Amino acid sequence: MNLSCPIPLTNYPRVLLAHGGGGTLMRGLIDVMFSAAFGDLGLQTDTDAALFPPTEGGLALTTDSFVVHPLFFPGGDIGRLAIHGTVNDLATVGAVNGRLTCSFILEEGLPMEDLWRVVRSMAEAAREAGVAIVTGDTKVVDRGHGHGIYINTAGVGEVRHGLDLSPKSIRAGDVMVVNGDIGRHGVAIVAQREGLDFETVIETDSAPLNGLVAAWLAAGIRVRCLRDITRGGLAAVLHELAGAGGLAYHLVEAQVPVREDVMSVCELLGFDPLHIACEGRMLAVVAAEDADRAVTVAQTEAVGEGATVIGTVIERDVVPVTMRSRSGASRVVSMLSGEPLPRIC
Amino acid sequence: MNLSCPIPLTNYPRVLLAHGGGGTLMRGLIDVMFSAAFGDLGLQTDTDAALFPPTEGGLALTTDSFVVHPLFFPGGDIGRLAIHGTVNDLATVGAVNGRLTCSFILEEGLPMEDLWRVVRSMAEAAREAGVAIVTGDTKVVDRGHGHGIYINTAGVGEVRHGLDLSPKSIRAGDVMVVNGDIGRHGVAIVAQREGLDFETVIETDSAPLNGLVAAWLAAGIRVRCLRDITRGGLAAVLHELAGAGGLAYHLVEAQVPVREDVMSVCELLGFDPLHIACEGRMLAVVAAEDADRAVTVAQTEAVGEGATVIGTVIERDVVPVTMRSRSGASRVVSMLSGEPLPRIC
Repeated sequence: MNLSCPIPLTNYPRVLLAHGGGGTLMRGLIDVMFSAAFGDLGLQTDTDAALFPPTEGGLALTTDSFVVHPLFFPGGDIGRLAIHGTVNDLATVGAVNGRLTCSFILEEGLPMEDLWRVVRSMAEAAREAGVAIVTGDTKVVDRGHGHGIYINTAGVGEVRHGLDLSPKSIRAGDVMVVNGDIGRHGVAIVAQREGLDFETVIETDSAPLNGLVAAWLAAGIRVRCLRDITRGGLAAVLHELAGAGGLAYHLVEAQVPVREDVMSVCELLGFDPLHIACEGRMLAVVAAEDADRAVTVAQTEAVGEGATVIGTVIERDVVPVTMRSRSGASRVVSMLSGEPLPRIC
Repeated sequence: MNLSCPIPLTNYPRVLLAHGGGGTLMRGLIDVMFSAAFGDLGLQTDTDAALFPPTEGGLALTTDSFVVHPLFFPGGDIGRLAIHGTVNDLATVGAVNGRLTCSFILEEGLPMEDLWRVVRSMAEAAREAGVAIVTGDTKVVDRGHGHGIYINTAGVGEVRHGLDLSPKSIRAGDVMVVNGDIGRHGVAIVAQREGLDFETVIETDSAPLNGLVAAWLAAGIRVRCLRDITRGGLAAVLHELAGAGGLAYHLVEAQVPVREDVMSVCELLGFDPLHIACEGRMLAVVAAEDADRAVTVAQTEAVGEGATVIGTVIERDVVPVTMRSRSGASRVVSMLSGEPLPRIC
């Protein structure tokens, strides 16, 4: 893809209200910029709804809006995140053949080059994840009523595996696996936002997880339930699972992977990494006998190199989520009222 | 549905950043407010993606974000609009069995009662249109980076009719039909926004058009192509059709229905009603022999009471869109660079 912005920047250095007005300027954005980026990803620009032949399997449908600030951060940007977020929601139900929509809410005055950078980044992320971007929408809000770019991606996928991956399938004795270190996305954003300076730059973990899930299912791993770890962190995911079933979740702190630099920032700012968002981490609850194989299979994928077992599902206790600390004591893992870091995704 | 807000207003009179944080407060919004409103409309709250059995027909997929200001206006609000907009995009391809997603970007400080009013209104509009609301997402942005409520609705529908409703199907000699007076939505918004005072309140034309399209198809009307008239107005729709095919579109001014009060506002503010958005108006291009029947069938639907023929498709001329004025002269109908009224939808 051409790296320079296809909209003439001397004429339109910034996004105008009229770029969202349904007239020639908006048509220009669609025909010149979005078609250049998404044309070979299946974008259909001549109808109000994209059309496809009947699906083989069941349907999965998901939506996510992205309001992360800043728009660009180490290892990613709002565009990559918007693709990964929806790809990963589809991956939690084992859906394949993802088709995404893309809707922008732009703020008047946004540098046109920033939009192009984000659009290009979405195209790259979609290509890497093997998903289509089939239809879209553009709105522009007046200055002071947005924050550069907000993106909604909705996604449709096909479910062909015939498994029930809902929390109902989880049994006491099952084992929890994650595909890598946790909390890195949230810390990358906050470090960038607060201008924290470290020896090494902490990059987001944002990544597509559909390949990982496909590998697990293809290997016949008895996957009970999948959840991508986002807002609220691993703690929120486990509380949601505990709330949906009648079971409890017990982590082993020494086995939960947190990078040292991420832990340092958490300690500095008073955060618990269990509460921090990831954007490329999947919690898989699997049958105990398949746990080791789930780790081995994950490790064959780039996104699963750091895969590991982090705990087990146990019969319901008074407390739904607990963790055995490094000192051997068992502690309660709480769910916060909200993500400690706002606008993380 | 209970009319009073299910979130305790003494505790949470306004939306907090934490309501979008993935923790207990967001869970409360989902379990208490969204489930109360959308529970019997098919909302699935326990997975990251909603699941459905395989479809019979082809798939249609569409997305739209809504940033209209003000949030509440005569005859509607942003919630009704968000349902109608996506229902109508699906209707343009003749899709049935619509399933919608609903993603909110809320501004910190939004009165909780306003959110409830909008959510309730979405539920009512979905029920009236016979569509499901199956999954959603909530983000909260800090004060001054939103404008109360932005909504994205994406939608999936099934296409079972086997027709090609793209501009390619249009032939010279075909006839243009609309289901009622044009320009009312845009004028209703601008009148409210500018505090214009008239003898009668001008209400939006916002309405679902899926029933109308179903009636046309069931009656065997040879529909060539359908477009709902939104941003950019009827002029933008006709320019898009002209751009997609090799034909020209000729309107007859005396036959294009514009309400007198709408025309007065347009004259006062210097707008051409052909450029003003509607939210419940469909342009149908139909075979000439079926034009009268298309009007008659439309008139059996409440939303089509004002249906009428407005012009014909002709061989390509120098000018793609023209109109015979009341005085008998032919004038060029231009496409604007953008909607004259920003944030109309």
